[in-house]
Amino acid sequence: MRIAVIHGPNLRLLGKREPEVYGTATLADIDADLQKIGETLGTEIESFQSNSEGEILDYIEEASTRVDGFLVNPGGLTHTSVSFRDGLVGVELPFVEIHLSNTTARERFRRHSFLAPVAVGVVLGFGSESYLLGLRGLVTHIANR
Amino acid sequence: MRIAVIHGPNLRLLGKREPEVYGTATLADIDADLQKIGETLGTEIESFQSNSEGEILDYIEEASTRVDGFLVNPGGLTHTSVSFRDGLVGVELPFVEIHLSNTTARERFRRHSFLAPVAVGVVLGFGSESYLLGLRGLVTHIANR
Amino acid sequence: MRIAVIHGPNLRLLGKREPEVYGTATLADIDADLQKIGETLGTEIESFQSNSEGEILDYIEEASTRVDGFLVNPGGLTHTSVSFRDGLVGVELPFVEIHLSNTTARERFRRHSFLAPVAVGVVLGFGSESYLLGLRGLVTHIANR
Amino acid sequence: MRIAVIHGPNLRLLGKREPEVYGTATLADIDADLQKIGETLGTEIESFQSNSEGEILDYIEEASTRVDGFLVNPGGLTHTSVSFRDGLVGVELPFVEIHLSNTTARERFRRHSFLAPVAVGVVLGFGSESYLLGLRGLVTHIANR
Amino acid sequence: MRIAVIHGPNLRLLGKREPEVYGTATLADIDADLQKIGETLGTEIESFQSNSEGEILDYIEEASTRVDGFLVNPGGLTHTSVSFRDGLVGVELPFVEIHLSNTTARERFRRHSFLAPVAVGVVLGFGSESYLLGLRGLVTHIANR
Amino acid sequence: MRIAVIHGPNLRLLGKREPEVYGTATLADIDADLQKIGETLGTEIESFQSNSEGEILDYIEEASTRVDGFLVNPGGLTHTSVSFRDGLVGVELPFVEIHLSNTTARERFRRHSFLAPVAVGVVLGFGSESYLLGLRGLVTHIANR
Amino acid sequence: MRIAVIHGPNLRLLGKREPEVYGTATLADIDADLQKIGETLGTEIESFQSNSEGEILDYIEEASTRVDGFLVNPGGLTHTSVSFRDGLVGVELPFVEIHLSNTTARERFRRHSFLAPVAVGVVLGFGSESYLLGLRGLVTHIANR
Amino acid sequence: MRIAVIHGPNLRLLGKREPEVYGTATLADIDADLQKIGETLGTEIESFQSNSEGEILDYIEEASTRVDGFLVNPGGLTHTSVSFRDGLVGVELPFVEIHLSNTTARERFRRHSFLAPVAVGVVLGFGSESYLLGLRGLVTHIANR
Amino acid sequence: MRIAVIHGPNLRLLGKREPEVYGTATLADIDADLQKIGETLGTEIESFQSNSEGEILDYIEEASTRVDGFLVNPGGLTHTSVSFRDGLVGVELPFVEIHLSNTTARERFRRHSFLAPVAVGVVLGFGSESYLLGLRGLVTHIANR
Amino acid sequence: MRIAVIHGPNLRLLGKREPEVYGTATLADIDADLQKIGETLGTEIESFQSNSEGEILDYIEEASTRVDGFLVNPGGLTHTSVSFRDGLVGVELPFVEIHLSNTTARERFRRHSFLAPVAVGVVLGFGSESYLLGLRGLVTHIANR
Amino acid sequence: MRIAVIHGPNLRLLGKREPEVYGTATLADIDADLQKIGETLGTEIESFQSNSEGEILDYIEEASTRVDGFLVNPGGLTHTSVSFRDGLVGVELPFVEIHLSNTTARERFRRHSFLAPVAVGVVLGFGSESYLLGLRGLVTHIANR
Amino acid sequence: MRIAVIHGPNLRLLGKREPEVYGTATLADIDADLQKIGETLGTEIESFQSNSEGEILDYIEEASTRVDGFLVNPGGLTHTSVSFRDGLVGVELPFVEIHLSNTTARERFRRHSFLAPVAVGVVLGFGSESYLLGLRGLVTHIANR
Repeated sequence: MRIAVIHGPNLRLLGKREPEVYGTATLADIDADLQKIGETLGTEIESFQSNSEGEILDYIEEASTRVDGFLVNPGGLTHTSVSFRDGLVGVELPFVEIHLSNTTARERFRRHSFLAPVAVGVVLGFGSESYLLGLRGLVTHIANR
Repeated sequence: MRIAVIHGPNLRLLGKREPEVYGTATLADIDADLQKIGETLGTEIESFQSNSEGEILDYIEEASTRVDGFLVNPGGLTHTSVSFRDGLVGVELPFVEIHLSNTTARERFRRHSFLAPVAVGVVLGFGSESYLLGLRGLVTHIANR
Repeated sequence: MRIAVIHGPNLRLLGKREPEVYGTATLADIDADLQKIGETLGTEIESFQSNSEGEILDYIEEASTRVDGFLVNPGGLTHTSVSFRDGLVGVELPFVEIHLSNTTARERFRRHSFLAPVAVGVVLGFGSESYLLGLRGLVTHIANR
Repeated sequence: MRIAVIHGPNLRLLGKREPEVYGTATLADIDADLQKIGETLGTEIESFQSNSEGEILDYIEEASTRVDGFLVNPGGLTHTSVSFRDGLVGVELPFVEIHLSNTTARERFRRHSFLAPVAVGVVLGFGSESYLLGLRGLVTHIANR
Repeated sequence: MRIAVIHGPNLRLLGKREPEVYGTATLADIDADLQKIGETLGTEIESFQSNSEGEILDYIEEASTRVDGFLVNPGGLTHTSVSFRDGLVGVELPFVEIHLSNTTARERFRRHSFLAPVAVGVVLGFGSESYLLGLRGLVTHIANR
Repeated sequence: MRIAVIHGPNLRLLGKREPEVYGTATLADIDADLQKIGETLGTEIESFQSNSEGEILDYIEEASTRVDGFLVNPGGLTHTSVSFRDGLVGVELPFVEIHLSNTTARERFRRHSFLAPVAVGVVLGFGSESYLLGLRGLVTHIANR
Repeated sequence: MRIAVIHGPNLRLLGKREPEVYGTATLADIDADLQKIGETLGTEIESFQSNSEGEILDYIEEASTRVDGFLVNPGGLTHTSVSFRDGLVGVELPFVEIHLSNTTARERFRRHSFLAPVAVGVVLGFGSESYLLGLRGLVTHIANR
Repeated sequence: MRIAVIHGPNLRLLGKREPEVYGTATLADIDADLQKIGETLGTEIESFQSNSEGEILDYIEEASTRVDGFLVNPGGLTHTSVSFRDGLVGVELPFVEIHLSNTTARERFRRHSFLAPVAVGVVLGFGSESYLLGLRGLVTHIANR
Repeated sequence: MRIAVIHGPNLRLLGKREPEVYGTATLADIDADLQKIGETLGTEIESFQSNSEGEILDYIEEASTRVDGFLVNPGGLTHTSVSFRDGLVGVELPFVEIHLSNTTARERFRRHSFLAPVAVGVVLGFGSESYLLGLRGLVTHIANR
Repeated sequence: MRIAVIHGPNLRLLGKREPEVYGTATLADIDADLQKIGETLGTEIESFQSNSEGEILDYIEEASTRVDGFLVNPGGLTHTSVSFRDGLVGVELPFVEIHLSNTTARERFRRHSFLAPVAVGVVLGFGSESYLLGLRGLVTHIANR
Repeated sequence: MRIAVIHGPNLRLLGKREPEVYGTATLADIDADLQKIGETLGTEIESFQSNSEGEILDYIEEASTRVDGFLVNPGGLTHTSVSFRDGLVGVELPFVEIHLSNTTARERFRRHSFLAPVAVGVVLGFGSESYLLGLRGLVTHIANR
Repeated sequence: MRIAVIHGPNLRLLGKREPEVYGTATLADIDADLQKIGETLGTEIESFQSNSEGEILDYIEEASTRVDGFLVNPGGLTHTSVSFRDGLVGVELPFVEIHLSNTTARERFRRHSFLAPVAVGVVLGFGSESYLLGLRGLVTHIANR
């Protein structure tokens, strides 16, 4: 099994950006943790970050021929991008949406996600642990199909 | 560590009720799985189900003196109970909210949760796997404090 | 055929409570009338009242193995209880929602019912006659399936 | 006693139009059933169908001098016609609103009725049986005044 | 004169729960203070707490034959319970709604009360003093009728 | 100068319909008064009533070649008819909207008029006097152009 | 009969302020016209202008003992002043609300009037003629009581 | 193939009514153009105009037995008529909705169409060309089924 | 301790204005009662009434140097004045908001208060008794700081 | 004449992505059809696809000096991009918006387009035929200016 | 050139009122700074403060004959006064709106300004510097006309 | 001190695009003026324009290590980009938002800015002068920290 992890806009700032909200783990730390858990689950992981919606859509299209699903932290695009949703639906692969922070406890505009209604599931609020829980959930979902 | 699992209204019907939405696992199956994972995480699990908001509030108050956190599937009370929220906030213990189905993909009234903004995190959409992911997330959260 | 009648919160007050809104018939009067019409329709009737949502959910689950449908006056829970809806949907039996008063002519918050969209049909505004019309409609519906 | 039945726009299509929503009974079938029940209730029935709001208002005004009440299926005018409401209120006779389908379970715009708040009562969702239940309710209401 | 005091869900937690919001007085402290002021006002006080909406409705019905009014802190049910409102209206006794905290300064969902529009009056924001002010207001209201 | 008066749906009921809202003057009384005032203002008056939106639109088109403006009481169509508005705008003649009752003091749905924003002016609440005031205003407006 | 005319904020600017919206008549012109029509109607007119809500309220209270009604152009206070409404209701005299411009055709915030629902009637859109029509309507209303 | 063209309310005014919005082509011009294009597409065209919703519903029902689809310019009924929608859905034939003007660029109330969600497609903003484009689209749609 | 009582617009009308809503006590009666209770509480009372928002703001600024808190009945300004709120917050003294009537049971626009979220507490619905309860609450609050 | 066709995000997936919604034609098929129709209309066609809003804006600016109009399928950006609208308005060339699917019949968020109010016209719901109809409409519009 | 500066309600409290929001500069400090910058810009400055909307409107009318524009900090009237807007529009002079605090970051009701849409420009969030920036912008605007 | 100026999407069109809205100054003109004022303020200025949200986020991250603040004209992204906001908040540097036009006077969707609540301040409506005022405000803000 092979899973593509998509880190959306501004996630390169992790560890530096508002650590009281997002924690101190860097993106490299998270990718390393995902690799480790991936191994115990017999799953290959590839990882992609971009600040550009367009590049993310290009990546989804390109990666869709070699992976079994997507683990997605859409960042600020969660609340504003219909194209992100359409791209994931278009390649017809399961995906899980995760967030580091508990978005329901923040500004009102963070409560709505264009992606969530077409996701397998959503995990939010556990810091970098959200990625690991989301990966487990996605792998189980794909295995059970 | 000790975690109390709260199954809200109608969850005794699990396995029978709308299996295409909620899956075929019964509450007993889920509790057994939680026990198993609890053991690997070094965590004791106790489990409580009630159809009554009042009984759940009584249980939260009573259990709060012996547990370190709550794993909560609030069922239909998710969307309507301020008292459930107030009860969990009142005992000042961390809790995780989980849902079997992807509530963001169902009726509009299921999108709002009174509990989510005061939860550590939320897991939804993975069927009975949601409980297990939520437990992992809660245990990690408590261990990291 | 066997039908369970559920009288929701505050309906024990019938005959005393706001007679200009709800009429002078008591719950016992209504149950007696339902028995009589049930006999002419060849249908057994059982009746249940509770002020507690939780007890009603317990009753729905327990009665669901012996009845063919529910006749429900959900009282104030009409407008606030997702769990009531979920409980009725969960046991997969047809039900009819009735109201004594014309709820569309009262306070704005009484216009929305969580139960109505998953009911067979709705009868409202005919006083205690609403129960009798609802019973007829439910029995015809079950007979025609 | 004499009751006028008003079938609103498109109801001539009954039996042909979307039978999975509206059933297979034609308007003639329904009128025949209403006549039969009318006889058992000692009530004369007259029936009127029009696709035109204006003709319906003319009919209400004209019939109001010889009938004791109206049984109304307003069709699509339910949600859009203030004049229909005003016409019925203007002649100061009781009326019952009925719908073949459970309008609360359909498109959002079908949830609001301009007529319901000034009706005696409402019956919806029982297919052609809704007419018969509505007639019984209306006759009882008039008899009890 | 005799007044029944109803403490709604979670109020057993008083003194422990969020003391910066609700103060340090326990329910026993408040009941004792109410007794004292009751004596100076020539009024007997009885007190009831429950976490269950159903039990509160049972209590309202039962107590309504021996008391002259209710002093109610509905807790989280303030914002969600139509049945609580209907129960109090149904017994046709005056009641006063009180809150420990200034609910208008908290989350948006706490601004709406189903009970307030049918109460004699409302007191909010004075901590445990709210109960005492509410009792005075209720007693004066009943005395002046 | 020549003015066409349009009486919308249900206005034939005037004098009979809800006299506490609409007064006791009949449509014939109003038309006679308009004739009288028309004479003092040197204006010919023609009058048209229909319960049908379509007939009113036909009339507007037909009359537009011989009159200088319209005095309109749109009745229930005020709040629901875009076509009425479009028809009046289409013939490019000035019109005044009048109402017998103070619509701002009635049901919420009576507050919005599709016609008012394209009218010269609006008069409401003076009973049958509204017609006379509206006629004066319309005649002055046309004379001043 | 004696009528007090109240000109609200900014109406001293009439004739200078946005003549394409409000016309070229000055306040003095309007007051002179009102005097003339008042004479033909056998009614004394007094006139008051203030930019201050407080002064207007003082005037209403003071004038209420010598006049039979108010003719009010509330200007910008129309949409923002609950106190203006309360003051007019408090003295229990009939009043008519008028506007020079057709407020329904302007900015959205001009569509709502706090005063209109408690007025006898409303006249809007006829320029300075609105005052004269409003005066006629008010005098007729008072005479007919 | 045979297509029925329905011109809704006020469209007889075309060429005269607001030419800067609707262009200078008359209904006869448009029907002639439709005939010409119909011939090149091997399609018979019949055309119907009425200002009355009821007559349009009668026509839909009657024409439905001899045509393969409808080309509809619903005029002001676009935004207000549930019955128009129900009538078209009821005969179960494909239809295309067209508008002369770009309704998304006009008043807010013109943005919502009751018909569009059940149409094959929508064409708007091209003046009388909208009819021709809509006809091409409808014919292609029917041919491809 | 010294408390300033502010009576907002139209409160000079008390005793005359709508006695069924506001009671028969005059402002002088209320001020006398406040003096009496002030004495038993060891608190000096000064009282101020104005119909002008501006004068009230001037008074708040001026009185703020000699008093310990404000007891405020803001009248119609409750729902419309941000400046009143800003003035009270600006002088950084505690205040209590009171209303004679139960504003939650009246027009919708009376439900929102700009002042309440920054008040110590709110008392409403007890007639002139609201002032006395509010004074007690304010004095206790200041004493407990 | 020269027209630039802009295919927005995810349109490279055409033919693969949800064929039941978008049809089986690929982007190459559509571009070929547009070329063919372009020839019959004497119009040169150039075509551009990008998943990136930024690249599309660059293209609009660059192409604006050599084309006479744009034919735009904005994909998911329809509902979320003010910049797309501003870019098209900024170069002051006419454009037509097209959609493959009937967006009014899909999710609620697809009903609003930022581009439509500034477009010449809109075509939606005809599958790949939408492009061809849109091109015809745009060419006619430009030719008629 | 001559500019009138209007300081709205409560601004006399500057320097004392909530210094963490509004800074420590007093109104006198700000007026002195404005004079200084005015001199460098060759502009005379006059300054006016009032807590009363009515006095401000009187001032606008009176000053309008001698100044070239207004620099306005409307305080709490920003969000509530249509008359303030109407007064400024009525004298047909350019004005700039400024705020000390960043109103978009505060309570929701501070986000809407009745004045901003008719202002030349708006400056907010820079503390007392907002006045100076606003003055520069206004002077440049007037000079460039 | 060093400030980075960010020109958002479509701003390369300045001077050509809608000059009646945005003025005739080009981006080069504005950058030159900013350099000049920067010199008088002892501040180095760098300038960046992109039509791509992703490139802007990359630039913010990269520039954040060498500048003291950002002067941002976010163009159409103002109203739609949560990522832009998150990027600026993430680097924890002060920024000022500016707009050439008075966005509060344009389409409704331009009234909301995702960036403004986290900006130091906002300047809008002064044409290219907005940049210069914003720079002054930002420099003063940074100097005063």
